[in-house]
Amino acid sequence: MFHHSSKLQYEVRCDKPNPAFAKYLQQAIGGIEGEIRVAMQYFFQAMGARGNPKYRDMLMMTATEELSHIEFLGHAVALNLEGAPVEVTEDAAKDPVVHAILGGMNPRHVLSSGLSAMPVNSNGVPFDMSHVYATGNLAADMMANATAEGGGRVLASRLYNMTDDPGMKDMLSFLIARDTMHQQQWMAVIEELGGMEAQLPVPNSTPEAHENTEHSYYFLNTSLDEPTPEGRWTSGKSLDGRSEFTIREKPDPLGQKPDLGKAKPGSGAQKEQM
Amino acid sequence: MFHHSSKLQYEVRCDKPNPAFAKYLQQAIGGIEGEIRVAMQYFFQAMGARGNPKYRDMLMMTATEELSHIEFLGHAVALNLEGAPVEVTEDAAKDPVVHAILGGMNPRHVLSSGLSAMPVNSNGVPFDMSHVYATGNLAADMMANATAEGGGRVLASRLYNMTDDPGMKDMLSFLIARDTMHQQQWMAVIEELGGMEAQLPVPNSTPEAHENTEHSYYFLNTSLDEPTPEGRWTSGKSLDGRSEFTIREKPDPLGQKPDLGKAKPGSGAQKEQM
Amino acid sequence: MFHHSSKLQYEVRCDKPNPAFAKYLQQAIGGIEGEIRVAMQYFFQAMGARGNPKYRDMLMMTATEELSHIEFLGHAVALNLEGAPVEVTEDAAKDPVVHAILGGMNPRHVLSSGLSAMPVNSNGVPFDMSHVYATGNLAADMMANATAEGGGRVLASRLYNMTDDPGMKDMLSFLIARDTMHQQQWMAVIEELGGMEAQLPVPNSTPEAHENTEHSYYFLNTSLDEPTPEGRWTSGKSLDGRSEFTIREKPDPLGQKPDLGKAKPGSGAQKEQM
Amino acid sequence: MFHHSSKLQYEVRCDKPNPAFAKYLQQAIGGIEGEIRVAMQYFFQAMGARGNPKYRDMLMMTATEELSHIEFLGHAVALNLEGAPVEVTEDAAKDPVVHAILGGMNPRHVLSSGLSAMPVNSNGVPFDMSHVYATGNLAADMMANATAEGGGRVLASRLYNMTDDPGMKDMLSFLIARDTMHQQQWMAVIEELGGMEAQLPVPNSTPEAHENTEHSYYFLNTSLDEPTPEGRWTSGKSLDGRSEFTIREKPDPLGQKPDLGKAKPGSGAQKEQM
Amino acid sequence: MFHHSSKLQYEVRCDKPNPAFAKYLQQAIGGIEGEIRVAMQYFFQAMGARGNPKYRDMLMMTATEELSHIEFLGHAVALNLEGAPVEVTEDAAKDPVVHAILGGMNPRHVLSSGLSAMPVNSNGVPFDMSHVYATGNLAADMMANATAEGGGRVLASRLYNMTDDPGMKDMLSFLIARDTMHQQQWMAVIEELGGMEAQLPVPNSTPEAHENTEHSYYFLNTSLDEPTPEGRWTSGKSLDGRSEFTIREKPDPLGQKPDLGKAKPGSGAQKEQM
Amino acid sequence: MFHHSSKLQYEVRCDKPNPAFAKYLQQAIGGIEGEIRVAMQYFFQAMGARGNPKYRDMLMMTATEELSHIEFLGHAVALNLEGAPVEVTEDAAKDPVVHAILGGMNPRHVLSSGLSAMPVNSNGVPFDMSHVYATGNLAADMMANATAEGGGRVLASRLYNMTDDPGMKDMLSFLIARDTMHQQQWMAVIEELGGMEAQLPVPNSTPEAHENTEHSYYFLNTSLDEPTPEGRWTSGKSLDGRSEFTIREKPDPLGQKPDLGKAKPGSGAQKEQM
Repeated sequence: MFHHSSKLQYEVRCDKPNPAFAKYLQQAIGGIEGEIRVAMQYFFQAMGARGNPKYRDMLMMTATEELSHIEFLGHAVALNLEGAPVEVTEDAAKDPVVHAILGGMNPRHVLSSGLSAMPVNSNGVPFDMSHVYATGNLAADMMANATAEGGGRVLASRLYNMTDDPGMKDMLSFLIARDTMHQQQWMAVIEELGGMEAQLPVPNSTPEAHENTEHSYYFLNTSLDEPTPEGRWTSGKSLDGRSEFTIREKPDPLGQKPDLGKAKPGSGAQKEQM
Repeated sequence: MFHHSSKLQYEVRCDKPNPAFAKYLQQAIGGIEGEIRVAMQYFFQAMGARGNPKYRDMLMMTATEELSHIEFLGHAVALNLEGAPVEVTEDAAKDPVVHAILGGMNPRHVLSSGLSAMPVNSNGVPFDMSHVYATGNLAADMMANATAEGGGRVLASRLYNMTDDPGMKDMLSFLIARDTMHQQQWMAVIEELGGMEAQLPVPNSTPEAHENTEHSYYFLNTSLDEPTPEGRWTSGKSLDGRSEFTIREKPDPLGQKPDLGKAKPGSGAQKEQM
Repeated sequence: MFHHSSKLQYEVRCDKPNPAFAKYLQQAIGGIEGEIRVAMQYFFQAMGARGNPKYRDMLMMTATEELSHIEFLGHAVALNLEGAPVEVTEDAAKDPVVHAILGGMNPRHVLSSGLSAMPVNSNGVPFDMSHVYATGNLAADMMANATAEGGGRVLASRLYNMTDDPGMKDMLSFLIARDTMHQQQWMAVIEELGGMEAQLPVPNSTPEAHENTEHSYYFLNTSLDEPTPEGRWTSGKSLDGRSEFTIREKPDPLGQKPDLGKAKPGSGAQKEQM
Repeated sequence: MFHHSSKLQYEVRCDKPNPAFAKYLQQAIGGIEGEIRVAMQYFFQAMGARGNPKYRDMLMMTATEELSHIEFLGHAVALNLEGAPVEVTEDAAKDPVVHAILGGMNPRHVLSSGLSAMPVNSNGVPFDMSHVYATGNLAADMMANATAEGGGRVLASRLYNMTDDPGMKDMLSFLIARDTMHQQQWMAVIEELGGMEAQLPVPNSTPEAHENTEHSYYFLNTSLDEPTPEGRWTSGKSLDGRSEFTIREKPDPLGQKPDLGKAKPGSGAQKEQM
Repeated sequence: MFHHSSKLQYEVRCDKPNPAFAKYLQQAIGGIEGEIRVAMQYFFQAMGARGNPKYRDMLMMTATEELSHIEFLGHAVALNLEGAPVEVTEDAAKDPVVHAILGGMNPRHVLSSGLSAMPVNSNGVPFDMSHVYATGNLAADMMANATAEGGGRVLASRLYNMTDDPGMKDMLSFLIARDTMHQQQWMAVIEELGGMEAQLPVPNSTPEAHENTEHSYYFLNTSLDEPTPEGRWTSGKSLDGRSEFTIREKPDPLGQKPDLGKAKPGSGAQKEQM
Repeated sequence: MFHHSSKLQYEVRCDKPNPAFAKYLQQAIGGIEGEIRVAMQYFFQAMGARGNPKYRDMLMMTATEELSHIEFLGHAVALNLEGAPVEVTEDAAKDPVVHAILGGMNPRHVLSSGLSAMPVNSNGVPFDMSHVYATGNLAADMMANATAEGGGRVLASRLYNMTDDPGMKDMLSFLIARDTMHQQQWMAVIEELGGMEAQLPVPNSTPEAHENTEHSYYFLNTSLDEPTPEGRWTSGKSLDGRSEFTIREKPDPLGQKPDLGKAKPGSGAQKEQM
């Protein structure tokens, strides 16, 4: 069960409200790199967690923290929208600066939300829950979570660079820090379970008989004119410790030329297809 | 530039066409765990790759392979739809078996595609490109790719279990194998670049001055009644080698109680808010 | 800031796990009538609340409660999925009952989530945040909230009828009760502010000079052959107390026939349009 | 059956074409607060209406009116796009005013529609029909409709403030007026049926035995540090006349700690979860 | 301006209500091949029509007709849902026939709409307005419209085959007929304007100097192992009468190998990319 | 099976990088008129092709070409983003030119992709695969393809006009040329199969007994006040050669007034509807 306390997890100050930056910040709320995504992702993973219950607890605790991140970012958006124009006068309509502000902001911050945050990204596209990755497989989920936090910290770093407002920079430096921890915490689960060697390939429970292992360890060079880009993935022991990496270049197709024959009567095709 | 040869990358046999399994297979084509996603993800990452060009080449080569996976899976869907009913007779309408088949298949496999594959998942929801993760950050992208392949191999393993058709099992055992390689190949890039210690936190180019490092290494226990779930993430050296993990329990909020004051005249609020 | 305690807000029992009912329950999680929607709607309204802060507090408290509803419903979905098949044997493939179960469940409950809840509706369509209505106008928001809870209670009542599982019925009877309270609580805000007469038309801050009041109080009968359906809306004092309702039948258009003239050179039209 | 006459329901004049305002106006066409939504919502409610047929007629008549609103707003968008640039010269490319115009308009108004209206909102996001609320429950639908019209009038009032064009203001003052009537007309249905006391809780046909009424009339304070915000919803007779409002503070969870146990073999989880 | 008369454009009878067929019919309402799409497509094209106004009138008249098609199909869906179960008893839960019915129907036809039509397709995916194609180019629009009607008639023919209900077959035979006319009417516009030779390439107003005509008339064989499939498109006069078709086989790339160099400082990439 | 060569199909030069034009170009990648759409559309049509295999080959060859178009357009976007700001200084924040640039570009080109192409349109809306039209009917598909290419060439022509960069104009003149060919190649299939007379109505395999031909050849004038717009579609031989076009004006409805009666007990309606 969830509870709430009235103060924000971190203080939000906005020295120079900027409606364009409000639009940018929306990416951290409703973008695929944003906080709604991680809050819901960890929450749904927790609800489906099977196995050692400590991972469930860990997921729920961080899901709860991410809800608090939505909250202070939402406040930051509203503070940046203080000062956005809500009425256009004849003079304003002629002013290129006003045009630039209006062009640079999300019109729905005036029209739809009345100067407050929305669950959308910086293009105004609503977040959709297809981005909540929760597979029921612990390693797949931990990777997905570290990925989400990596994307989140990239975003927070870019936002930090796109503002010169000290309050916003301070808030973002907190987010950058928490994203550091969260990246590590999910990868630490994998390390605790024996690291990549033990956890790969995901799922590690697939019986070997279900895998055509002849095809499991070669890098396929599908290029007609480029040499294989060599690296850790083209030679040496595989990361799961089961085999050696090799290379397969200019591969011949292994299958047939597909042919579906004629269309069935009654199937809605043209007569010429039947 | 892309080229094509007429045979499939891998042979597809379907011994017992099954329209319900055709619906299931769609998840591997148009699901978030599917092949359209990885093909497009690696393609867009390649187009935006900066730095050592070998990673660009590697991405494009595997993007090209994934297009071939869409192709043979698409053929597998069509083969499973051979035998689906396209006309309902009075007798059929009374037959519970026919009802079960009709109920179990995707109606659009008859109504919209005329017995062939669609770029949709197993619920019939079209794939949308918001799932193409390409950040311009190499480590974030490699993590995203390993995640996608982990999800893909989980899916392929589940599909393997949900069919008893030998041809389908054979095709899926090939997919399971390639997903093994692809998971490893993306993680091998990270290993080649010094492993997690060198690559974390993502992005590793964020100046330390942009991070409020006081908050970077504690696990936050937001639960009111649960002890902290202890593990690799609560003590010991952080995975980036920069610090030590600690715990913060029952944390007090660090910020203010948010207050936006009164609504502006002309902002479309109720009078009582002004 | 959010906090969590480890027990569910309400107890969940599932006596006869039923994968089809798991699919049905998803509507209450990720449907437009569901709990993600109200949780996020009240949360975003709270973050944008201006005016008397008690409404902000009220919104945040109920948002927090709704998060707890997602949580116990998510558990209910997982419990209903215990017993769903994860492997298909040759015998099973021939069994019409198994076919019916497979046809009746959401395939992604096996393929994607591994037997747990997803943030999707009963068709498997992911929830998207465009359904979070938060206008910055208190009365509009209260109406939207009462609407959402009305739809939610309709749904919960239908779900109650669609199961014969005593545990599920018990859980739903709790949801039905809370939806009762939530409907009333939002309408009570309007009553406290003077009721419909004071709050309509929304927004009540629009200056009368911005409204062509000649058109504000007639019911427009756009039918060519039906008499006006008479009722409270065709005569008597208007609900805002400002005027009297009247009727306008078979109305003549008040505007011009639209004509955009020719297409511009360079605008990409056909020559014949220029 | 529908019919059409060639003139607009209301006259549209645009004195100073403004491509940025064209983008803003799109919210009133393809936004969730817009006319496509209400036209389709009333239409689908009418098609599903059961009970007294006069409500069906009323819904269809107003659906028909809303189609006419789409029509004149679409014309208004096209008129505002007269004067938008369709060719960029070298000089134009250097001009910050042109940059501001291009930045402020929807690029698809040139690229996709060739200077005319689209069924999208002011962010260019296409309207999707998930926003058509039609529940089969008369009171739920009436509430949804009044909500939609409240949102619509808030939007029209904001658009009125965001333009200084007299023609646009005139058109919007008509819309504001019709939204006044439509809000009232849907609430008048509820009043005619006995008002909130008779219609709440929605659905009023749910047998009391299906409701755990012990939980139906308390406001739940989920905050750890805030007193309950008191008001009409915390004491006094409930709006349905069945009970008294009370308060429940710092509630203890009523349910169990959820535990799903181990993952099943064959379910695609990691070995460590089994 | 729109008007309505109370009777349906065509009579709807449903002799054997079938909830599964109700789901199928939804494709004709809210599918991309359905009536909402064409109604809105013609409507938006009409609102943006420039040039000879008779095409505008024609578009609006047929848009109006398509609204009437939505209406009778919506009634057909509701009639097919008469008889769908709204309550599940213990006996029913054990009955495979009931399971098949429940599995075969759209659960939201009970849960969300209360036994009536929804603006969704046969998978329950809501229609979204991105499918409204209106380019401002008359020929492009006419092609899009003929395409939509072609898809619509394919669908109606398939639906005809998927039911044995005489009333449904009768209604669909009317739809098939109207789709015949509508296909032809849009292609007749092209014929009236001089046929394909005059109208191609679309747009025919693009100055020849804007086209690298060296590449305008060859069929590109991108296959490594297949001969060029010969036909009307590989030799003979081009359809616009401007040139001759030719073939280009195993083409060499004409461009460079793309190289974006290093990532910029401050751009959020990994250090190794800079 | 797909293969790749390392050079682009066509050379891409960008003389004056322009982040706003990068946003515009996205329409040609991820818009409904763009290259992802046609690549995937031809690919899925090829996978479902039944009948003469040469059409399958033709589709796959052109699908492969379109993948190469995505590739060079993606490079063009990245080149236009060179020079976009990734850091905002205090001075920059005051500069209206910088504001105009920031307002005119897609913020996600910095925040999400780090200066490279995304699979989104010029509004930042991700492409979704519902736009992949593949019906299993050859004529319907050919029409859909010619439509897509018509829309594509309209877009490319508009983009040509919206830039003054010689490199971009050169690249677009190649695209315009290929779109010319592709339009013609799909229509040439129809011509080869006997032209419109033989192929209409689509599907031409629908038995005449399934069509109420009384309604197949009249233009329906649904207007109350406009005369029928006369043209090729109102008189003369129908395009399929089967009949003559006629006109039906001010049509009377042929159907009943719909009436669903009362709502069922247990269906979640209000009591007043039962």
